[in-house]
Amino acid sequence: MQTTRLLLDTGSGGKASHRLIKDLFVKHFSNDVLDKMDDAALINVTGPLAMSTDTFTVTPLFFPGGDIGSLAVNGTVNDVAMLGARPLYLSCAFILEEGLEMSDLERIVQSTAQAAAKAGVKIVTGDTKVVPRGAVDKMFINTTGIGEIMVQPCPQGHRAAPGDAILVSGTMGDHGLTILATREGLSFEAPIQSDCAGLGHLIAKLLQAIPEIHVLRDPTRGGLATTLNEIAGQSGVQCLIREDAVPVNPVVSAGCSFLGLDPLYLANEGKLICILPARYAEQALSIMREDEFGRNAAHIGDITDEHPGRVVLRTPLGGHRLLDMLEGEQLPRIC
Amino acid sequence: MQTTRLLLDTGSGGKASHRLIKDLFVKHFSNDVLDKMDDAALINVTGPLAMSTDTFTVTPLFFPGGDIGSLAVNGTVNDVAMLGARPLYLSCAFILEEGLEMSDLERIVQSTAQAAAKAGVKIVTGDTKVVPRGAVDKMFINTTGIGEIMVQPCPQGHRAAPGDAILVSGTMGDHGLTILATREGLSFEAPIQSDCAGLGHLIAKLLQAIPEIHVLRDPTRGGLATTLNEIAGQSGVQCLIREDAVPVNPVVSAGCSFLGLDPLYLANEGKLICILPARYAEQALSIMREDEFGRNAAHIGDITDEHPGRVVLRTPLGGHRLLDMLEGEQLPRIC
Repeated sequence: MQTTRLLLDTGSGGKASHRLIKDLFVKHFSNDVLDKMDDAALINVTGPLAMSTDTFTVTPLFFPGGDIGSLAVNGTVNDVAMLGARPLYLSCAFILEEGLEMSDLERIVQSTAQAAAKAGVKIVTGDTKVVPRGAVDKMFINTTGIGEIMVQPCPQGHRAAPGDAILVSGTMGDHGLTILATREGLSFEAPIQSDCAGLGHLIAKLLQAIPEIHVLRDPTRGGLATTLNEIAGQSGVQCLIREDAVPVNPVVSAGCSFLGLDPLYLANEGKLICILPARYAEQALSIMREDEFGRNAAHIGDITDEHPGRVVLRTPLGGHRLLDMLEGEQLPRIC
Repeated sequence: MQTTRLLLDTGSGGKASHRLIKDLFVKHFSNDVLDKMDDAALINVTGPLAMSTDTFTVTPLFFPGGDIGSLAVNGTVNDVAMLGARPLYLSCAFILEEGLEMSDLERIVQSTAQAAAKAGVKIVTGDTKVVPRGAVDKMFINTTGIGEIMVQPCPQGHRAAPGDAILVSGTMGDHGLTILATREGLSFEAPIQSDCAGLGHLIAKLLQAIPEIHVLRDPTRGGLATTLNEIAGQSGVQCLIREDAVPVNPVVSAGCSFLGLDPLYLANEGKLICILPARYAEQALSIMREDEFGRNAAHIGDITDEHPGRVVLRTPLGGHRLLDMLEGEQLPRIC
């Protein structure tokens, strides 16, 4: 890198663009497909496929447990994997603000490459736009992923059925509270960090053992409560959740009490909801708990046929509370 | 739409997001895959595939001949098609600024849907982020496309060979000059408009008749000169171009003279470069000229083995000029 800040003409499509692409993106993302440097990538897959896209606008760019680059890989890898697919290929499109620190960009490109390697996906095609100062806040990244479906019928949001168990792979709310705390300069009695992680390998293990899984979904924006409402609506069932069974990191719980936030509505970026016939619940929990990203997996509730479309929380005192979808905006730009 | 401007909580992932997605995006983009509303789309394809991504940051959002929505569809459809693929599926990710006029957003979503229908592609998965005022300039769109490869070996940038003819499908520079003129409020003696168009159908016709095509590439950012330099570099050949054979709309030519711009470096968004064995040149030109997007197709030069990696322009007076890659930035945010 010859300059310490990104120049506007680096986005022209001309010589400066080609240097940036070669010296930075291809250097870190290098693989047999990307290195061909055509406008489109030639990939070999056999259908059916899962395809998913997400743009990441998180602020700040760096946070405990990750950065916008690792988040952009893991977020899309997870969305692809939730359809029961093995994530294989990613596109990666950067929108960069003129004047961005080149050292920040290089750190993020490295972390993007590391997250892709860990998730076992290749970044096969990309795009770089540099826009004038003020036209974007530092950096946004879009990733789009495709993967091969591993089981048919594949897990989908409309397949939850009465008699199914609802599992989560770990504690709720870590990512959302970490972003808020980092942004506002808050500190708690113990450090917290984002759960940002790719779940493709864990999902492959689950589906290999239990192809009958009905729904897999990652509770990102809007948190567990909003995601369960989506599933309840798509499947026309009720989700009945036991409040004291939902795993929440004690520091997140204390932080949420202090700030008036509900961990059930905070985003997660390395957790999954798994809905499957109750007879497989213990087996699925064992598989999750053996995985580095499923240590705190728990059976948090069940699918019933009362009140289709609703999510109900049973409190430790035996009360029932309707868990609605998130209405307003708890916190913008968490992903 | 209940409000005339976009609210921040529309990007929360909660109720307001779901309403926007249902009332706007799904309404206009509706198809059997998207309507499932899972985080990933389930698609049936048979490999090998072409995959390409592009983020569109064009300003202004509306311009003669198109808008950011039609541009986002056509730009990615073209990149996929240039690898000899039939574009089939698109993801579409919107980044929206709080306060955006809802009527502008709806116009753009409609135009996106129309461009997709015309190109014969389905928008199967999407993402919407709403960021606080000032974090993005109005609206950016990322599209990622996949398509099935129609011929093998497929056209790629490294396949240009001595003896090949270099064709273009029409006039050069219309898009770039239109964006500049719109932005700066310039008017010329006759109206000009962007050439923004999807070339998938034209490419399918070309490849069906002439599977031996070596290279297809769309001269977008950096224009014809920069794109030919890429190909010359990838293939290790020289591109020898006859200046008086390159079709340029007379109004674009006059506007460029006036502004000190070179149409060979201006972006196009509905044109292609086709490089193929010279014996097929006339056949390819006939096919192009019968298509609505190829009326002004021309044979502009040839591939030779002198000076590998170079693009040389032969002027009408017999002189030779080296056409280098674009060095700086002629005009930011043209796509």
